[in-house]
Amino acid sequence: MDDKLMLMIPGPTPVPEQVLLALAKHPFGHRSGEFGKLMAEVTENLKWLHQTQNDVLCLTASGTGAMEAGIINFLSPGDRVLVGCNGKFGDRWAELPEAFGLNVDKVTAEWGQPLDPEQIRAKLEADTDKQIKAVIITHSETSTGVLNDLETINRHVKAHGEALIIVDAVTSLGAVNLPIDEWGLDVVASGSQKAYMIPPGLGFVSVGPKAWEAYKTAKLPRFYLDLGKYRKDAAKNTTPFTPPVNLMVALHTALRMMKAEGLESIYGRHQRLMNATREAMKGLSLPLFAPDGFGSPAITAVAPTGVDSEKIRSVMKKRFDIVLAGGQDHLKGKIFRIGHLGFVSDRDILAAVASLEATLREVGYEGFTPGAGVAAAARVFAQS
Amino acid sequence: MDDKLMLMIPGPTPVPEQVLLALAKHPFGHRSGEFGKLMAEVTENLKWLHQTQNDVLCLTASGTGAMEAGIINFLSPGDRVLVGCNGKFGDRWAELPEAFGLNVDKVTAEWGQPLDPEQIRAKLEADTDKQIKAVIITHSETSTGVLNDLETINRHVKAHGEALIIVDAVTSLGAVNLPIDEWGLDVVASGSQKAYMIPPGLGFVSVGPKAWEAYKTAKLPRFYLDLGKYRKDAAKNTTPFTPPVNLMVALHTALRMMKAEGLESIYGRHQRLMNATREAMKGLSLPLFAPDGFGSPAITAVAPTGVDSEKIRSVMKKRFDIVLAGGQDHLKGKIFRIGHLGFVSDRDILAAVASLEATLREVGYEGFTPGAGVAAAARVFAQS
Repeated sequence: MDDKLMLMIPGPTPVPEQVLLALAKHPFGHRSGEFGKLMAEVTENLKWLHQTQNDVLCLTASGTGAMEAGIINFLSPGDRVLVGCNGKFGDRWAELPEAFGLNVDKVTAEWGQPLDPEQIRAKLEADTDKQIKAVIITHSETSTGVLNDLETINRHVKAHGEALIIVDAVTSLGAVNLPIDEWGLDVVASGSQKAYMIPPGLGFVSVGPKAWEAYKTAKLPRFYLDLGKYRKDAAKNTTPFTPPVNLMVALHTALRMMKAEGLESIYGRHQRLMNATREAMKGLSLPLFAPDGFGSPAITAVAPTGVDSEKIRSVMKKRFDIVLAGGQDHLKGKIFRIGHLGFVSDRDILAAVASLEATLREVGYEGFTPGAGVAAAARVFAQS
Repeated sequence: MDDKLMLMIPGPTPVPEQVLLALAKHPFGHRSGEFGKLMAEVTENLKWLHQTQNDVLCLTASGTGAMEAGIINFLSPGDRVLVGCNGKFGDRWAELPEAFGLNVDKVTAEWGQPLDPEQIRAKLEADTDKQIKAVIITHSETSTGVLNDLETINRHVKAHGEALIIVDAVTSLGAVNLPIDEWGLDVVASGSQKAYMIPPGLGFVSVGPKAWEAYKTAKLPRFYLDLGKYRKDAAKNTTPFTPPVNLMVALHTALRMMKAEGLESIYGRHQRLMNATREAMKGLSLPLFAPDGFGSPAITAVAPTGVDSEKIRSVMKKRFDIVLAGGQDHLKGKIFRIGHLGFVSDRDILAAVASLEATLREVGYEGFTPGAGVAAAARVFAQS
């Protein structure tokens, strides 16, 4: 049905009407007092959202651009970095430093499984001459719906003492508790089209004091993504290069909405959406791709047996105007992914699960009790 | 007056209502058939706008990001580049390659004056062992309102044979004739918030065959701005990293508007707006900063004597809700700049000139005949 699209992918995520209207306002100059005022409030609210007093810098870039900035500003050619790889994004964060001549050491886990903090601990403990300059971890692995145990991994990095921790929080920031100052996370990157509830086009990087120390001696070349320039200008509520003004206005509105909801409520809602989605899948006898305890509050990956994931996605789209994500790379056709990130309510999950039940019936999948998915989700909602 | 702002700066430029409404549509997934269809049309229309069969690639970045991509993809550390510097942006394109370890040789002209093609010819002719790998030229120097003679400079580059020509066309593309294929321009970068009539957030780079040859051996590190990735994905109507979906939808609408207007009309309109603005300033006895024959069709810089530029800007803003740009760096307070780029009509120029006359009266400037500016602009409009 025209104009009825419901996005349940891990990004872009749905955008609230008041944010869309903010986006559609006539742009104004980014070298104006108005923009400075807006940027001051945005920066303050970004720090609130990041639970940090560190700098939080806004780039005109996707999440990958933000991660690149988070890596190249703090390292030098030949530096050894440890990268956690258990999905498409983890793999990308191994590929990127390689392109910049860094010495990449991977810790891998099967796609769908979490990284093992013990393997990371072992590598860090073995590095007695402190050659590892950074540990790069994807918090929520969007490609598999796995939430890595960042808190434990970070403890091991802290015990090492030398290495920075650089976090891809693209689909975790604003969805799950990520207390940057409490944990002492050095660099955390994220993107606008996720929990921020605004369209893609803005990347964010939070940078702490230890990372700024490393910046002073880091030798990888940089200009557009030189975070020192952004830091200097952010102190004057401006940006070194033209910011995406309309997206900044949208961000301003979205951050006010997030503040009104409150961090606890936002995290609680995402947890509830994830629990309801996972229980619904269990109720429908559809295997979950990520084990219990490691599900991402952003996205639930499902690996159905005896029925084609792509067929499910196709019927969901055509018949019910719900867009689910498919599997990436070797998981294409093997999993589908239900996004529940950002501007998503309990009702959206019920609508998606009910539509999925109707879809399963349409594609001839018989291994479930009709209504069992919705009932399981409703049970979660009744309890939380 | 609230909501009455009229932007006459060189970017962001005014955005048409239909583009704002396109921007405010709910985003959809960038890995969908819908997006592929949109991108196919956008790419075709970008090639039309660029007058080229070369690749025209879309990046989530500002114009500086697009220029960085246009430089780092085709060069290696230590390569000698010749950079034309006659304003803030020219200077930036000298600073950027230095940050990447290139060997920068500058050809300079005073801010407000055009680059001298003869100086560039001499440097290129002296380079008999073909050490100069690229010549970097700002076509329209936004900081001073000067249009450099790119056609002549490019002829000298072509005579050199080895060097690529890399053009900052950020405020010229879509405002003045820039026939990429006819002239054989290797790399041309631009940004969305200019003649494209959409908000900032998208950068564009056109890349020709000689530049792609250089790409194969270029050794500067790159990942997010690796244009090879964008080219490969553009062939499948997709992007390697998340595109700013809403801006792409807005671009789709804006390019259709541009096609309906036609290139000749667009160029003619910008020429007329520039002529009317320049004649109006002469009518008001306000000195133009760029000499006749070298005015940019994007922006006219004015260097008033006996009256403070910043005071003029302040009254224009407060009393008439017209935003003019000020001078940058050492020109701050010495010039003001009237943007006439993108979605700007004859009426806008008349409104701006009439408001400027009223402003001059308010700030006590007496060296002009009231009405002379508007009369001069009207004369231009009557003749073209």
